Amino acid sequence: MNSKPTILITNDDGITAPGIRALANAMKHFGDIVIVAPDSPQSGMGHAITINKPLRLDKVTLPDGLEGYQCSGTPVDCVKLAVNKILHRKPDLCVSGINHGSNSSINVIYSGTMSAAMEGAIEGIPSIGFSLCNYALDADFEAAALFAQTIVWQVLQHGMPNNTLLNVNIPDLKLDAINGIKICRQAKAKWVEEFDERQDPSKRKYYWLTGKFENFDHGQDTDEWALANGYVSVVPVQFDFTAHHAMAALNSMNWDVPNV
Amino acid sequence: MNSKPTILITNDDGITAPGIRALANAMKHFGDIVIVAPDSPQSGMGHAITINKPLRLDKVTLPDGLEGYQCSGTPVDCVKLAVNKILHRKPDLCVSGINHGSNSSINVIYSGTMSAAMEGAIEGIPSIGFSLCNYALDADFEAAALFAQTIVWQVLQHGMPNNTLLNVNIPDLKLDAINGIKICRQAKAKWVEEFDERQDPSKRKYYWLTGKFENFDHGQDTDEWALANGYVSVVPVQFDFTAHHAMAALNSMNWDVPNV
Repeated sequence: MNSKPTILITNDDGITAPGIRALANAMKHFGDIVIVAPDSPQSGMGHAITINKPLRLDKVTLPDGLEGYQCSGTPVDCVKLAVNKILHRKPDLCVSGINHGSNSSINVIYSGTMSAAMEGAIEGIPSIGFSLCNYALDADFEAAALFAQTIVWQVLQHGMPNNTLLNVNIPDLKLDAINGIKICRQAKAKWVEEFDERQDPSKRKYYWLTGKFENFDHGQDTDEWALANGYVSVVPVQFDFTAHHAMAALNSMNWDVPNV
Repeated sequence: MNSKPTILITNDDGITAPGIRALANAMKHFGDIVIVAPDSPQSGMGHAITINKPLRLDKVTLPDGLEGYQCSGTPVDCVKLAVNKILHRKPDLCVSGINHGSNSSINVIYSGTMSAAMEGAIEGIPSIGFSLCNYALDADFEAAALFAQTIVWQVLQHGMPNNTLLNVNIPDLKLDAINGIKICRQAKAKWVEEFDERQDPSKRKYYWLTGKFENFDHGQDTDEWALANGYVSVVPVQFDFTAHHAMAALNSMNWDVPNV
C-alpha cells in the first residue's frame, strides 16, 4: 500500500467508550482515521440493522480532541452510513473496538463489535474486531492497543484472505505477561441462561437476562484455550454460514411433497 | 420419536403477523405447540439480545384462538425465555417464521427469524427458519405451510445433522407451480445501500436505510438459483463461523510484537 490508508473506526460500546479512543489513537500512525460509532451503548446488538425508523448522524468531538460521527443506529448501521454518507467510498481498513469485554467463541454471534467488522468484510473491506477481556470502563488498553497495531500492520502489508475478517481477543494482562499471538478456531461454547425474575412497583413481573459462559471444547487450537494460556487469539471469521458438512445427510432425506 | 413432540414457534415479524399463525396451524398436527414471539416487529434485528433493559413476557390469545406469549425483546430473547421461563426444558423442535419476505443468501445474517432458529440450534434444539418470498402482510401462506410440514416431518423422523439449522425459503408461487425442494448453499450476494436523505420539520437531516439486493454468484447450487427457478431452497446453516480456508495464509504472516 503506497498512499496513506483510510481507516474506519467503530465499536458497539458507543462513541464515548474509552476503548474506541484507545483504538483510534493506536491507528492514527497508520493512516487517516474516520470514527463513526453509535451514540449509545449497543452491546449484544448482533448484526441488527435499523429499518423501521430513520437514522441520525452528527459530528462530535471526543474528550481527547479526536473528531468523529455519532450515529443513532446499530454498529452495522454505522459501517453502512460511514461508507455511503461520510467517506463516499470504501475505506482501506475497518477496525471495530476495542470492545470492553471478550468476544471469543460463540460471542462472535451476539457481538455488535464483531458484527460491524463482519459488515465491513461483506462490503469487501479488510476488517478486524478487537476485544479486551475486561468489561470495566476504566480497563487498561495499553497492551491491547499495541497488539492491535501489530495485527493491523500485518494486514496492511499482506492484505486479508478472501471473504474473511478477524476476531481478535486480548487477555487482560500486562504486556510482558502476554505470550504472543495465536491463530485459532472458534471454541464450541455457549451461554447457559439464568433469567433474573423481579417485580416492578405495580407488581408486574419482568426479567433480566443473565447467564454463565460454558466452554465444552477441550481443543488446544481454540480461542478460549489461547486466552486462558495468556495468548492473544486471532480467529478468521467467514460470513458464508453454509454447513457444508450437513449436505450429504440432508440430500439423503426424502423431500417429496405428499399429495394432499 | 414416540411421544408427542413439543414445538416452539417464534418469528421476527411479531406475534400479530399472519405468517406465525400460518406456521402454528401447520405445526399443530405434529405435536404440542408453544408460541413465544416479539410483541412488535423485529425485522433486521439479527442476533441481537437484550442486556441493557429488562424483558416483559405476557400471555395473549391470537385472532384464531391460538394461545401464545408475547415478549418485549428480540427473536433471540424469545427463544431464551421460552426455554428457561415457559417450557423449563428444551422443546423437541424450534421453528421460526413464516417470515414475510425472503431470508435467502446474505439475509441469514440480518434476519431475526433466522437468528431465532440459530439460537435454538446453539441450545441443541433441532431448528428451522421458514420465509416466504413475499413481504405483504396478506401474502398467501398456503404453499409455504405445506412445505413447512414436509420439511418438519423429515426432521422429526430423521433428526437434524449436528450443529446445523435449516434456512428454508419458499418462492411466492402457487403450490402447483413450485418444482420441489432443493438442498443448497448460501449464494454470495450482498445489499448495495442507498440511504434516503431527508429533512425533519426542524431542518435536521435524517436517513432511511434502503438498498438493492445484488447476487454475484452464478452457481446453480445456491439458494438464489433455486428460488429463481421455482424451487424451495433449504440451506443447512452452522454457527461455527471459523474461516478454516484462511488459516494457512494467516499462519504464514509474522505475528511477532515489535520491541517498543
